[in-house]
Amino acid sequence: MSSKSTLLCPKWLIPVQPSQTVLTEHAVLIEKETIKAVGKRERLIEQHPNADVVQLPDHALIPGLINAHGHSAMTLLRGIADDLPLETWLHDHIWPAEAKWVNEQFVEDGTKLAVAEMLLGGTTCFADMYFYPNISARVAQNMGIRAMVGLIVMDFPTVWAQNPDEYFTKGIEVHDEIRSYSNVSASFAPHAPYTVSDEPLQRVQTLADELQLQIQMHIHETEHEVKEAIGQTGQSPLRRLDDLGLLTPKLMAVHMTQLDASEIELVARSGMHVIHCPESNMKLASGICPVSDLLSAGANVALGTDGAASNNDLSMLGEMRTASMLAKVSSKDAAALPAWQVLEMATINGAKALNMEHEVGSIEVGKFADLTAIELASVHSTPVYDPISTIIYSCSPEQVTDVWVGGKRVVNSRVLVDTKIADLKLKARDWADRISRTT
Amino acid sequence: MSSKSTLLCPKWLIPVQPSQTVLTEHAVLIEKETIKAVGKRERLIEQHPNADVVQLPDHALIPGLINAHGHSAMTLLRGIADDLPLETWLHDHIWPAEAKWVNEQFVEDGTKLAVAEMLLGGTTCFADMYFYPNISARVAQNMGIRAMVGLIVMDFPTVWAQNPDEYFTKGIEVHDEIRSYSNVSASFAPHAPYTVSDEPLQRVQTLADELQLQIQMHIHETEHEVKEAIGQTGQSPLRRLDDLGLLTPKLMAVHMTQLDASEIELVARSGMHVIHCPESNMKLASGICPVSDLLSAGANVALGTDGAASNNDLSMLGEMRTASMLAKVSSKDAAALPAWQVLEMATINGAKALNMEHEVGSIEVGKFADLTAIELASVHSTPVYDPISTIIYSCSPEQVTDVWVGGKRVVNSRVLVDTKIADLKLKARDWADRISRTT
Repeated sequence: MSSKSTLLCPKWLIPVQPSQTVLTEHAVLIEKETIKAVGKRERLIEQHPNADVVQLPDHALIPGLINAHGHSAMTLLRGIADDLPLETWLHDHIWPAEAKWVNEQFVEDGTKLAVAEMLLGGTTCFADMYFYPNISARVAQNMGIRAMVGLIVMDFPTVWAQNPDEYFTKGIEVHDEIRSYSNVSASFAPHAPYTVSDEPLQRVQTLADELQLQIQMHIHETEHEVKEAIGQTGQSPLRRLDDLGLLTPKLMAVHMTQLDASEIELVARSGMHVIHCPESNMKLASGICPVSDLLSAGANVALGTDGAASNNDLSMLGEMRTASMLAKVSSKDAAALPAWQVLEMATINGAKALNMEHEVGSIEVGKFADLTAIELASVHSTPVYDPISTIIYSCSPEQVTDVWVGGKRVVNSRVLVDTKIADLKLKARDWADRISRTT
Repeated sequence: MSSKSTLLCPKWLIPVQPSQTVLTEHAVLIEKETIKAVGKRERLIEQHPNADVVQLPDHALIPGLINAHGHSAMTLLRGIADDLPLETWLHDHIWPAEAKWVNEQFVEDGTKLAVAEMLLGGTTCFADMYFYPNISARVAQNMGIRAMVGLIVMDFPTVWAQNPDEYFTKGIEVHDEIRSYSNVSASFAPHAPYTVSDEPLQRVQTLADELQLQIQMHIHETEHEVKEAIGQTGQSPLRRLDDLGLLTPKLMAVHMTQLDASEIELVARSGMHVIHCPESNMKLASGICPVSDLLSAGANVALGTDGAASNNDLSMLGEMRTASMLAKVSSKDAAALPAWQVLEMATINGAKALNMEHEVGSIEVGKFADLTAIELASVHSTPVYDPISTIIYSCSPEQVTDVWVGGKRVVNSRVLVDTKIADLKLKARDWADRISRTT
């Protein structure tokens, strides 16, 4: 019996697997980086008298939340251009600002702010897509969050690379550089069907097969995107990607607000994953991903916040709530996407999408101890009839009190361990001051 | 110069009137219950050397939020029946639970919990519709929040009254009883077109004219409601109310998710008010109020949370955000309902709906000092490019630090003045335990 073991004793233990389960009088035993036992509290305390016991008397303990899509460093552009449609927002505001301001320091400072926000909000793992993935990877590794960074590929030049060849070269360098990181993995990240042509897409698929990497890509984000592609080529971007052989369980298709019935079938059959970003899709008026239909067809649907410039926060608690409410109203069915199912989207489904379902996404023996404790005692979450409902429909990120990633406590009583939040905020304000003065 | 004056010095002062204004280096002078001056900070400090100065260095100061529709005491049923359609939710869960449990003590304990939540979340005024309005009125008056309670009218018996005559008798009694209350007024509250017949509705209108009271009513909440009425009578509930003479500036029509173009015209022409409850409408899959079309047509649209059993919180910050995002995605226009406009809905438009626009709803000289300070320094609201955007798209209720109602500070540094929150929570848990055991 190691003296390094920790016993977490929450009021409610919500393991996600098995589905729809709420355990009371239970505990979770952590040893080193993994979950060693899940069982009756009394018995575990008896069997492990030397364990550090963490009492969580008003708390629900859930698997750490998995934010399956975002652009972390964009926290520095949070609120810079609101109430604008996607094309204007992207072409007239975000892309020019990025071309002018994004560099290694921007990515470091923005990603740190994002990781701080995510950890404090109960997110223990995130998939990222942004320039300088070497920097985001290092920030994630140092701050103790789990991450899958995207190796961006585009046809046109950006601050990160000039042409597809350079994107690939730099991407592979980053992939090799971060292989030793315990918490960070790489994935390919071709930006979108309208910014990456066939040849680099095929190369992405080949390299992803060889290196066994996932592929993140924005697909069918807007009606405009799909209509334009059909007008130019006669087929939807999704059909084109199918022809190119990209629709496999490696693919994380982000947004997917435009899908006809046969495309929903195609998605389910292919084993690819859909990453739903409801708040970004609503705020940019992009459309509504048919989540209930996709789930009914058997597709795996995970959840992401997208970047802070189109959301404008990285709260997965808020995203779950919005996802559930949006699914209900858009499918005209109040039983659609119930609380337990949207919690699965934000945990085990995210793990599946990132090809990490054997490592994270549920509270099960042998998985990494990625855990989030939420105190259900705020006035706005009182009383509690069903803790899963309370988490989804009544909680704010401030109710997250403690977070463990790989067995390490990274948030302790609402405070980030090892990170001075005041410094991160100062730097963010400094960036905003400079950007405001010249934009 | 009275020594009782207070000077609030926020980083950002957002008066709402004039529209879309953000003032810096300004201050608000409060004397007794009203706003005495709004002006340059330096000058006001010089002119009022004896005033108590309240520094709000990272804060936005906005008019107190107005929750224009809710059922406060239902906080005790928060989360009791989720993921169910309106009819099942109402007929099989909420109404039976209410018939069994609602009494004066339930309304007192539930309303106290609701008022605590609303004040802590920056709401300074709410319109309520529930049984025992005498009790809710007393709770509101004692806790120092501003309220308009509804005098319920229905055809059928409930815990509050047995028939229309008794609803009127008891309602008028409550109206007379609370006339001396400084913070509370009364309004009529016929429940809905499908629960109140023509005769009592006409009586409501007559009495509302005589007593100069507003009328709150759920109208066109679901497609089912409208279709059933058209099937039975050949006309929509709204047309029926028009025939009965109810469509006047006295009417606060709650929900209104089903409206054709001619009905939108009718609403705008009549001067009646629409109370939009987006989160309840989404969660119950009731439908989507065409807010942008109503505003374009010139109608006044305010915002409400509805009861905690269908939301499941009373946060007006969250409601504003959802309203904006829902308007954008449903109208396919990311410019729809921008941040400044949804803030107006939650302040001055609410004041108009409650017929209190000369008293509250903006930070203007002569109005009651109903004010909310929000600290924009959380990691998830950093940096700030535009404080109105930050309030709407990035804030949680925990960022509300200080609240004044009628010049009295009722929330001080995130703590409710004069109310022991722990007692309220204990009582709520006790109710939930009893209700759970027998439901």
